Amino acid sequence: MLISTCSINENRSIEHIEMNTKKTSSLKSDLDTPCLMLDLDILEVNLQKMKDLAGKAGKSLRPHAKTHKCSALAKRQIEMGAIGVCAAKLSEAEALTAAGLGGILITGPVTTKSKIDRIVSLLAKAPSLIVAVDNPEAVEMLGAALRENGLSMDVLVDIDIGLKRTGVAPANAVAFADLVISQRNFRLRGIQAYAGHVQHIKSYDDRKNKSLGCLAEAAAVFKKLRPKLGSSPIFSASGTGTHDIDLAVPETTELQVGSYVCMDAEYMAIGSDADESRFTAFTPALRLLTTVVSANQKGFVTVDAGLKSLYRDGALPQVLGHEGHGLRYDWFGDEYGKISYDETTPPPAVGEIFELVTSHCDPTVNLFDRFHLTSGDEVVGSWAIDLRGCSQ
Amino acid sequence: MLISTCSINENRSIEHIEMNTKKTSSLKSDLDTPCLMLDLDILEVNLQKMKDLAGKAGKSLRPHAKTHKCSALAKRQIEMGAIGVCAAKLSEAEALTAAGLGGILITGPVTTKSKIDRIVSLLAKAPSLIVAVDNPEAVEMLGAALRENGLSMDVLVDIDIGLKRTGVAPANAVAFADLVISQRNFRLRGIQAYAGHVQHIKSYDDRKNKSLGCLAEAAAVFKKLRPKLGSSPIFSASGTGTHDIDLAVPETTELQVGSYVCMDAEYMAIGSDADESRFTAFTPALRLLTTVVSANQKGFVTVDAGLKSLYRDGALPQVLGHEGHGLRYDWFGDEYGKISYDETTPPPAVGEIFELVTSHCDPTVNLFDRFHLTSGDEVVGSWAIDLRGCSQ
Repeated sequence: MLISTCSINENRSIEHIEMNTKKTSSLKSDLDTPCLMLDLDILEVNLQKMKDLAGKAGKSLRPHAKTHKCSALAKRQIEMGAIGVCAAKLSEAEALTAAGLGGILITGPVTTKSKIDRIVSLLAKAPSLIVAVDNPEAVEMLGAALRENGLSMDVLVDIDIGLKRTGVAPANAVAFADLVISQRNFRLRGIQAYAGHVQHIKSYDDRKNKSLGCLAEAAAVFKKLRPKLGSSPIFSASGTGTHDIDLAVPETTELQVGSYVCMDAEYMAIGSDADESRFTAFTPALRLLTTVVSANQKGFVTVDAGLKSLYRDGALPQVLGHEGHGLRYDWFGDEYGKISYDETTPPPAVGEIFELVTSHCDPTVNLFDRFHLTSGDEVVGSWAIDLRGCSQ
Repeated sequence: MLISTCSINENRSIEHIEMNTKKTSSLKSDLDTPCLMLDLDILEVNLQKMKDLAGKAGKSLRPHAKTHKCSALAKRQIEMGAIGVCAAKLSEAEALTAAGLGGILITGPVTTKSKIDRIVSLLAKAPSLIVAVDNPEAVEMLGAALRENGLSMDVLVDIDIGLKRTGVAPANAVAFADLVISQRNFRLRGIQAYAGHVQHIKSYDDRKNKSLGCLAEAAAVFKKLRPKLGSSPIFSASGTGTHDIDLAVPETTELQVGSYVCMDAEYMAIGSDADESRFTAFTPALRLLTTVVSANQKGFVTVDAGLKSLYRDGALPQVLGHEGHGLRYDWFGDEYGKISYDETTPPPAVGEIFELVTSHCDPTVNLFDRFHLTSGDEVVGSWAIDLRGCSQ
């Protein structure tokens, strides 16, 4: 049963879960721990909120599947109007295609002979596939492989707007685009520009200024390239931390946001337009359940979730309902965590279960094979994390 | 082909790999990246070295499978004389049992009703199973479940020697042991005492003093308990960082060392008896292969291994052959790494492949489904990381 705070078409959502899961009927407290949960009611609110924001701004959504690594959730995003999904790696795109998804943009460079051969094979099953490119040799190799197979495909030029990780410098972008076009078997659709270094800046105003500065560089390139692009040019940008800022940039056509579906402690700690002390746009739908397994100390107990089930990156995991007071999670090795309690909270007992908001959702999701789907206290099904481990 | 630096019975090792793998014949450079490799020649040297040290000291080995999460490697450890393997979690013990292994010690507390039911089921298939206990209520629950099923089992009392994570205080250990014995369906075999907080102390002398101090507390408990134990009492202790120190403690009977098989940058950075600046006892057999995917910057390139394929914990990953000079790996997000080069090294090109020593082997292994097994430049097979994700 989906509780009534869920603002979406409930039947459709329930149907979708039944299609993708072994139907169960149990309570959260019956789940073995550590395990990952997705609160469906919150998830649907997050999905709807991003959809509404993008719709109002006249932009498309192609959310990043690298966050949730779940083709069932990607299908839900497409059901709700997304034009496709992004994949960071080729192996993610292969898994998404195998699950029947289209409109996939591979945001990372594909540069080796063996991966280029796999792109060509994938294209037969996924003609709507798009790849971002940033390297002349890789473009030539991919172009040659396409010609050999009598194929053509969509590409975006990846523009480096300050992260310096992938992409060509804005000053070199037009020449690089001409090289891409000269390969003939590419349809140059536009650009990708991701300001990854800006997403977690705590101050909203700083973040806004930096993001707008970065995107202005990309927008200038996009305008120069426009005559070379087809009828529906693409300018793919943004992340959860700057989604509202980047929607206001006239040139962007689509957002490749990822974390907004799950959310984590790292994002919850940054400021927002509405509140400089916290991120108010989305609510954590992803939680980790953990059980107290040892309680022989004063001031803290030991729980069964450590580095191997909560990726240690960014902010500390938060004990749900105890943000900033009462109970505090800290790291305690590969297999364990420490939950400290203060005088406002009775000492937790062995067997007690807590819900944690994860430090950094993306690499934590990648530690598990399954999301348990919950609504209130009920477990209503599960989704396979079928892209888990797709790092190639 | 195993190259001749391998000091072990080669036929036996080759046979074992053939039994456990899909036989391949290719080169390291053919492997898709990022991927995990185990250098079999180094692995065998590490295994033999620990076996010889333990044998010389008259101790047994029950290595920790939580490091490698691989039942094929656990079998190799047992072939080489280990009396069993340790598991941190019940689900690891279940997977090891399913793979045909015996002599399993579960080193972490099992406290919930559902897990206790699973222990009882597992015991039917694994009568040699041992669990470490530290909580009166859990002992009573487990005792009741055993009585209901007409079963009995081996247990160790987990002694807290300063890590404060699990275990009973030495002062309470005898009373707790009496409670265990009073449950009747347990065979109290001895104690477990793990000084996890000592393993990575950089100074060998400090580490030695601290480890001996911790184990002296456990040894005092062990002596008091001896009259209550059977004919082959167990005192299970140690880790890779203190293996040589703890072998010299007369009372320890077995070592639960884990990381020595794989090794990592974190362990390589601690001092040893022979050299205060580095750990000389074992050599990294575990490597991560990564490929340069973008090279548009001065001073560094981008590679395809980031947080999701190299767990960020402990020391920075080391570029093999460039320890301390030339090339340096640094983090660059979930999917990417940055390899910086100095004036002594030509700039790496797109497509170039590097071998990295991982930061912290245990959680990195848990990110992959397979070890590629290599000897020199050849890939001679693979082993499934079949305990991957067993966090429950």
